[in-house]
Amino acid sequence: MIKNISNLQAKLQELIITQKNLPTQGHVADYIPALAEVSPKLMGISVATIDGNVIGAGDYQIPFSIQSISKVFGLVMAMNRIGDDLWQRVNMEPSGQPFNSIIQLEWEKGIPRNPVINAGALLISDVLTSRFSASKLAFLSFMRSLAGDDNIYIDNHVYQSELSHGSRNAALAYLMKSFGNIDAEIPDVLSHYFTQCSISMNCQQLATSLLFLANKGIDPKTQKVICTPRDAHRVNAILSTSGMYDQSGEFAFSVGLPAKSGVGGGVIAIVPGYGVICTWSPPLNKFGNSVAGTKLVSGLAEELGLSIYH
Amino acid sequence: MIKNISNLQAKLQELIITQKNLPTQGHVADYIPALAEVSPKLMGISVATIDGNVIGAGDYQIPFSIQSISKVFGLVMAMNRIGDDLWQRVNMEPSGQPFNSIIQLEWEKGIPRNPVINAGALLISDVLTSRFSASKLAFLSFMRSLAGDDNIYIDNHVYQSELSHGSRNAALAYLMKSFGNIDAEIPDVLSHYFTQCSISMNCQQLATSLLFLANKGIDPKTQKVICTPRDAHRVNAILSTSGMYDQSGEFAFSVGLPAKSGVGGGVIAIVPGYGVICTWSPPLNKFGNSVAGTKLVSGLAEELGLSIYH
Amino acid sequence: MIKNISNLQAKLQELIITQKNLPTQGHVADYIPALAEVSPKLMGISVATIDGNVIGAGDYQIPFSIQSISKVFGLVMAMNRIGDDLWQRVNMEPSGQPFNSIIQLEWEKGIPRNPVINAGALLISDVLTSRFSASKLAFLSFMRSLAGDDNIYIDNHVYQSELSHGSRNAALAYLMKSFGNIDAEIPDVLSHYFTQCSISMNCQQLATSLLFLANKGIDPKTQKVICTPRDAHRVNAILSTSGMYDQSGEFAFSVGLPAKSGVGGGVIAIVPGYGVICTWSPPLNKFGNSVAGTKLVSGLAEELGLSIYH
Amino acid sequence: MIKNISNLQAKLQELIITQKNLPTQGHVADYIPALAEVSPKLMGISVATIDGNVIGAGDYQIPFSIQSISKVFGLVMAMNRIGDDLWQRVNMEPSGQPFNSIIQLEWEKGIPRNPVINAGALLISDVLTSRFSASKLAFLSFMRSLAGDDNIYIDNHVYQSELSHGSRNAALAYLMKSFGNIDAEIPDVLSHYFTQCSISMNCQQLATSLLFLANKGIDPKTQKVICTPRDAHRVNAILSTSGMYDQSGEFAFSVGLPAKSGVGGGVIAIVPGYGVICTWSPPLNKFGNSVAGTKLVSGLAEELGLSIYH
Repeated sequence: MIKNISNLQAKLQELIITQKNLPTQGHVADYIPALAEVSPKLMGISVATIDGNVIGAGDYQIPFSIQSISKVFGLVMAMNRIGDDLWQRVNMEPSGQPFNSIIQLEWEKGIPRNPVINAGALLISDVLTSRFSASKLAFLSFMRSLAGDDNIYIDNHVYQSELSHGSRNAALAYLMKSFGNIDAEIPDVLSHYFTQCSISMNCQQLATSLLFLANKGIDPKTQKVICTPRDAHRVNAILSTSGMYDQSGEFAFSVGLPAKSGVGGGVIAIVPGYGVICTWSPPLNKFGNSVAGTKLVSGLAEELGLSIYH
Repeated sequence: MIKNISNLQAKLQELIITQKNLPTQGHVADYIPALAEVSPKLMGISVATIDGNVIGAGDYQIPFSIQSISKVFGLVMAMNRIGDDLWQRVNMEPSGQPFNSIIQLEWEKGIPRNPVINAGALLISDVLTSRFSASKLAFLSFMRSLAGDDNIYIDNHVYQSELSHGSRNAALAYLMKSFGNIDAEIPDVLSHYFTQCSISMNCQQLATSLLFLANKGIDPKTQKVICTPRDAHRVNAILSTSGMYDQSGEFAFSVGLPAKSGVGGGVIAIVPGYGVICTWSPPLNKFGNSVAGTKLVSGLAEELGLSIYH
Repeated sequence: MIKNISNLQAKLQELIITQKNLPTQGHVADYIPALAEVSPKLMGISVATIDGNVIGAGDYQIPFSIQSISKVFGLVMAMNRIGDDLWQRVNMEPSGQPFNSIIQLEWEKGIPRNPVINAGALLISDVLTSRFSASKLAFLSFMRSLAGDDNIYIDNHVYQSELSHGSRNAALAYLMKSFGNIDAEIPDVLSHYFTQCSISMNCQQLATSLLFLANKGIDPKTQKVICTPRDAHRVNAILSTSGMYDQSGEFAFSVGLPAKSGVGGGVIAIVPGYGVICTWSPPLNKFGNSVAGTKLVSGLAEELGLSIYH
Repeated sequence: MIKNISNLQAKLQELIITQKNLPTQGHVADYIPALAEVSPKLMGISVATIDGNVIGAGDYQIPFSIQSISKVFGLVMAMNRIGDDLWQRVNMEPSGQPFNSIIQLEWEKGIPRNPVINAGALLISDVLTSRFSASKLAFLSFMRSLAGDDNIYIDNHVYQSELSHGSRNAALAYLMKSFGNIDAEIPDVLSHYFTQCSISMNCQQLATSLLFLANKGIDPKTQKVICTPRDAHRVNAILSTSGMYDQSGEFAFSVGLPAKSGVGGGVIAIVPGYGVICTWSPPLNKFGNSVAGTKLVSGLAEELGLSIYH
């Protein structure tokens, strides 16, 4: 799709300059103080391809809080660990509701609609907490190994902030427990969840670490099997229908790539057979997705004809 | 993806035989008598490719009631007629609700979640009724011209049956009207809607007529522009996130193609850049999707590696 | 409770003067033009007692659109006509939802929560339409006979206005029909419902006509049995838990009488064993209840210690 | 209303015998083991009058778990402590939802519909926990002083059972906290709530202790002011519209008294100006109300003409 990598590098540069010159839209997440402190001006983009190129522009090497992007990695770990049993406890349907809605969880008797809304990610945190002796360390190791970079850490300031503003996630977790769909103790589940959300990574690390999803489950850097081709397919399907919260349909409609956003301002998009795009810009729209980050992905996808819907 | 058309023909035959030998699962739609009369044993599959092949197996030349598959054609007509104004009146998000749910329509103030749930299709019927002097004839002409076949008719028996069991759709339409989102008179809107649902077509005609969605909006048979590439993309995106009712996520997860089902037992699936699959088998699962029809699409997609999520 | 009728007359006068001197709060119903034209300054109160006194103050002899107050009369007619069969088709629970909400009706499979929300009143209109050869005339006759006054009419201007703005009620009726809970044709049901809502009466007529509910079902003016003591009890119970829309709990909490309001600005309140209060003032609060009308009832009830909760 | 107390005593005896001879309907609460162990055969009734009579029949002196009946007492304590500020944090409307529903709490932004559903009682537990240095002791003292009987205890077996099955209440509490409507720490709020639910009392103690609600806030045994007349009125109003969970409307319709039930099988009913009825029988109907207990109240109310709706 892209013939020349230096042309692509120039394109990334151009997209960043265009976006930086636009007036800032959206608002930096402020539900926890640690996120509210981040400068709204920071902006980065990185592209990693399965044939080995990794490029970027703007602040693509500055780490940020990955937040809900961590749900993608947690999902892969849980699928690897318990296989299809996972789908007895979480559905794979789009939610049609705001991302942290408790209403649907009650309607559907404690079964989350999908693994990338908060309830689903808490359920997966329960799986990981229950099945790994040290689930937080295992998670961090998984991230470092995928990125091929040990320079990835948990931001303790963010973690503490999450913990002290975690009532809504606690409500979701206790509701699932009341339906018998949580095994571990809730404080342990929340602690795992807030830990994985508090990991800091930069655009380049994220793009690199997700290449296996564009490559049928195999990390092209190491040729290691990260997951089965079927599971890579499934993750991409879930990200396509549900990855961008209650704006997933619009993102499919206008961009057309499996993607996941986080309230730290990051967005990752998978281009099956080609590579991964990661963008970052903290100000969010009302759906919780990065305004400029979404536009950067959209601009690049359109320019290069990357959409899976043609 | 498929090298040899006679191999494909043999594959279709094999899939039909396998499915026919399985015990029948699901139930033929019985909310209207006219549909309940159809034999549950009928089963067909057809594939049309953008390079001109059209093949089929089983009862692929027996016409059936296209029902909600008509929503795809109505959507294209409405986009062509009023352009982006359409998206002020209907959203493009998955619904997370059963297909004819009135709850979400009330929550969202009369704006349907997307154009392929009933409320959205009624809204589109309003657009067509209001903008065409004879919308039913225009619709039928559009279908005949896309199929390249004038031998397509409205089943009046089905139409009368729909009309006399249309209370729920009437409720949806009146609710939208109460929010100011319907222009025409409700009986006219319903009459158009039930007419387009009552069209009979066979698998071959449906597969052939939708090739433009696999070919960036251009009908490969005639080279006519049916819609813009952008709109072909958009329809495929909507079908991917919402085309299979409240089983859309699972269909993406396990099959991975833009698709639309109807309660007459038909399923169409778009393979961008390649062609269209249409299957038919009347018994439906609890979501309103054909059990065997879904399996036929799934079997073929897996065999040939057609998924857009790789 | 009240020793001296001329003291009571003076009290009514005083309440009206106090309320008239307050700045107007609330807004006259404007969902139909015919109601929006009424002067917000009009205000009346009337009290009828079971021992034969009828007094009033302010504009208590000016007729207004009774609107939802008609639901009380329709309920009595339907109970008389089909007895306990009625309660197979409508519940008697408070709704916990805005008065015309369609969400609850879907949840509860077409069974309205109670007979004094719109869905319930439409169901009762279906009962009346199906069981009386000329239900509108029967209704009007019932009203005239209860008031002992033939000078009661249907306001055709209001009726036409309701008809042309009736989409939401049509949606409710069609939804119930889709669940099999409506027998008659919807246009007939709506026509009956809008007719009974369009009756004009004044405070004195309304207070007089409802005395049977304060007197165990017997009209004290004529000694005629209007309904059984049990049904009088039941109507009062329903009005206590559900008569003031989604403000019923607050009205019980602060006033403590079975009551029903209409968007024409009328409020009736039953004082079992004593009599009936009717007030009128067109401006409504956000719940659809008359602001000043509610205060007039409240002031009188508190002054005279009328609450049933002591 | 009742002329002769020995006639009343005979009536209670007769009601108990009639009910005991009927086949048992309903099921003993089994969501916690400690409640499931109670014999379904136990059944008692007691009546206390404001003029000083206290009688009973059946097992009216055997203590049982008061469960949600404790909400009445908590409400009175909270009104006394913080006055009308309470109504900024909890509404007074019927819920129209099952008693522990989390859906409505989300819709209404963490404001419980009323103080006698679980969410409302948890909010009141927060008020008590935050405003009393030892809220559990204060609660127990209040109960003993109202009953005039120090022989009232917390059942520690029930309390531990509640604690270990409290996920749903935890979810409700955390959800309110996420909306800023809980001040104290959730474990403290839950501990208070489960403590008050775990108090054991018998029918006679409960009937006696609630006489102030039938007597404008004054305990007739001691002439002490327990609450203002206005607050006694308000509690009775809330119990009338909301005290019997999602069967409150039906209870008003068929019985007509302010009442509160608990899943331990107790039911209390206030007869303003006369006295209090308390019944007990563990098997519950689908709404969580005692089947026989409700019938005992109903039978007595009808026999004696106690309904407030006449």
